[in-house]
Amino acid sequence: MKTSENPLLHELKGLLREDQVSVNETVLEHHSKDESYHPESLPDIVVFPENTEEVSTIIKIADRTHTPVIPFGLGTSLEGHVIPYDKGITIDFSQMNKVVEIREKDFLVKVQPGVTRSQLNKELKKYGLFFSVDPGADATLGGMAATNASGTTSVKYGVMEDQIRDLEVVLPNGETIHTGNLAQKSSSGYNLNSLYTGSEGTLGCITELTLKVYGIPENIVAARASFPTVNDAVEAVVSILQAGISIARVELVDEPSIRQANLFSDTEYKEKATLFLEFHGNEPGLNHDVAFTEEIVADHYCEEVFFEKDNAARNKLWEARHNLAYAYVHGNPGKKIMVTDVCVPISELAGAIRHGRETIDELGVEAGIVGHVGDGNYHALLMIDTNNIEEVKKANLFNEAIVEYALKCGGTCTGEHGVGIGKMKYLQKEHGKALDVMETLKAALDPKGIMNPNKLVSGKRGSI
Amino acid sequence: MKTSENPLLHELKGLLREDQVSVNETVLEHHSKDESYHPESLPDIVVFPENTEEVSTIIKIADRTHTPVIPFGLGTSLEGHVIPYDKGITIDFSQMNKVVEIREKDFLVKVQPGVTRSQLNKELKKYGLFFSVDPGADATLGGMAATNASGTTSVKYGVMEDQIRDLEVVLPNGETIHTGNLAQKSSSGYNLNSLYTGSEGTLGCITELTLKVYGIPENIVAARASFPTVNDAVEAVVSILQAGISIARVELVDEPSIRQANLFSDTEYKEKATLFLEFHGNEPGLNHDVAFTEEIVADHYCEEVFFEKDNAARNKLWEARHNLAYAYVHGNPGKKIMVTDVCVPISELAGAIRHGRETIDELGVEAGIVGHVGDGNYHALLMIDTNNIEEVKKANLFNEAIVEYALKCGGTCTGEHGVGIGKMKYLQKEHGKALDVMETLKAALDPKGIMNPNKLVSGKRGSI
Repeated sequence: MKTSENPLLHELKGLLREDQVSVNETVLEHHSKDESYHPESLPDIVVFPENTEEVSTIIKIADRTHTPVIPFGLGTSLEGHVIPYDKGITIDFSQMNKVVEIREKDFLVKVQPGVTRSQLNKELKKYGLFFSVDPGADATLGGMAATNASGTTSVKYGVMEDQIRDLEVVLPNGETIHTGNLAQKSSSGYNLNSLYTGSEGTLGCITELTLKVYGIPENIVAARASFPTVNDAVEAVVSILQAGISIARVELVDEPSIRQANLFSDTEYKEKATLFLEFHGNEPGLNHDVAFTEEIVADHYCEEVFFEKDNAARNKLWEARHNLAYAYVHGNPGKKIMVTDVCVPISELAGAIRHGRETIDELGVEAGIVGHVGDGNYHALLMIDTNNIEEVKKANLFNEAIVEYALKCGGTCTGEHGVGIGKMKYLQKEHGKALDVMETLKAALDPKGIMNPNKLVSGKRGSI
Repeated sequence: MKTSENPLLHELKGLLREDQVSVNETVLEHHSKDESYHPESLPDIVVFPENTEEVSTIIKIADRTHTPVIPFGLGTSLEGHVIPYDKGITIDFSQMNKVVEIREKDFLVKVQPGVTRSQLNKELKKYGLFFSVDPGADATLGGMAATNASGTTSVKYGVMEDQIRDLEVVLPNGETIHTGNLAQKSSSGYNLNSLYTGSEGTLGCITELTLKVYGIPENIVAARASFPTVNDAVEAVVSILQAGISIARVELVDEPSIRQANLFSDTEYKEKATLFLEFHGNEPGLNHDVAFTEEIVADHYCEEVFFEKDNAARNKLWEARHNLAYAYVHGNPGKKIMVTDVCVPISELAGAIRHGRETIDELGVEAGIVGHVGDGNYHALLMIDTNNIEEVKKANLFNEAIVEYALKCGGTCTGEHGVGIGKMKYLQKEHGKALDVMETLKAALDPKGIMNPNKLVSGKRGSI
């Protein structure tokens, strides 16, 4: 595309540096996909702003020209959130990647949206602090806020929403707001922090985040416990929670997934349904929790349990867990991954996973099951040849079946990945008339429908 | 008012039982005020629905007739939230006071909005569970959700918003939605739980709540520590938090307030700046935390510290704390109470309280200071003769001064009481353009402006 042929490109190039505006094929390609099975689609233009003012300028132009705007972090989304099906301008936040301020005494940090969680944690470590949310992927904090991400530590520290003290947001008209403040709590007006968190770029662009951080725990112990069946492992988790043990992480990895991890991560974990656990706390309290947990897992037929107290062994364990999705991708070249994401009340989790496994077997698909089981959230990992219609159909049937099951028992179609394009079809069933409220919010706050259009909601005004 | 003279009253009486619709002077009077200094104003009619369908019916009539609707719990609000300045129908939820379901294994409870927190805790105790949010007043859970209440335990368990899994809400058009689900977490669409929590009845009526509850801790220890100055006490709290001690409650009560408590609660606490603390946990972990805390408070010149391990002494301590506002009211007959409510980042708390005390002295008003200091939230309790213009003026000047100070250091004008009528004047300064977003939300979700009008926001559409 030549600049002269495109007035939008021309205008953007007039306002930003040459290297901040791109229509290069490789760059467009890089912004045409995420880590999911959803089909690719190119944006018209990719821009790389360096500050909020530039984001505001870009969005004002988009507003005036009714051009779609897609905020882009690192493209680790799993439901097509960042794929520009309606074309338009993709705003890549990789140049807004500064840790702006660390307020040690307040346990707060201010960051730009392009900062990744590992980058932040490296910075925080110098202060004896850490950022708790850990979705596995080394996503950007802007992206994690946009999808209300969570992950392994949420059972103790909460999800992304729980960490957000303030967001700077550029609205669809180019104006900039702050959604919160620096205080620990507030009852001052409607909760805009939570409204923009999880809004998936459909209401505005996050340009700065003030996040809650934590002191690195005095003591950390990780453990790996293997069980005869997934059911035993899940029941053990329910008992641990019932006992009031303050667990920091509790992850289920089923037998096929342990096998995949061993292949990829060079581990020799017993190929059985396994819980990866972690405890944080002061030494005597933690020892008490660990001893109590050992008793509980034994009651649930645990076959062996290993405790990892030193950093290296602990890191290896969590690395193996985090690399699981990549292990599946790596082990299935040419295929794409579908990661399902239902979340159910904890009392329903064992049944939900049983139903999931049965459905996998019935449909004859191949899938591993892992989960943040302390939250009632489990993922099935399905490798799909997207050119094989039958395979795609079966994967979709599976996803529909487990979503249906989750909704029936009071759960949700997505515990942490968000809606994007992939889960929109389930929202009517999940939310009923509340979906009208969401459509009304979208229409009111993005009246021209330019912000990440046709994601999360349809953009058609609701009936209320 | 005769039924025949008022078609609205006539219609309501046709749909509800005789005793569910009242224009009785005493009943109207009872619904004309809250616990604050804000002037009274009578509603036209008070209704007492018994279920969601009746609430829906009432609101459909209000919608059709453009009649203001004011949801009313127990009238314990502190900023005039429930006072019907625009007249209309007050919906009293006292007949919707059932604990609907306790899901022990899921740590969830479903309640009607008129259930009070003490009523709920009495019920939960049978299951070894408790509901954590404790604002002092025995408010209804509907009211607590509407104001995003918090209180003494929020430093550990979070505020009202953190406990809300689902709300049933009757919208201003009479339709009913559910804002969430029963899963521990969700990324499914805009966060309606948090939007309706703290919306103070301005977007709809809460008719059912599903709330997170907790296992009663294995061990609880309370403590009372007195310090030479408020500043020493606050600095001790900062150090406790810095040390990573998991504290369940930490309340500041200044010297004048201890005096008031001793008078009212028949205690003989040392008349010094005092921290009331509480620790929850397993025995060895808790003992470790308690010992560490003793060291820290000693470093901050603590003069004496008492630990209360048995239930009776502990309850007496928290009763004295909870009754403080009533102690002030009781000790100042004929006066009304203004309870300020700023919240600041914890690093700014000592300065904010010092500034508050200096301003009290400068203006020559009388006030005690108490606070949920672990959250950076403090209250000044001012007794006002509302007929004395000079006294009212000084109280308002004081409130303005401390709000100004809080906003300057990144805080909020209200940590937990909400906006109501009393804090509206500060919202422009606190939120800037974000207030336009709030006005836009109100206009979109309550287009006729019938829900608790002229509270929280003006109801005039924002400029976005």
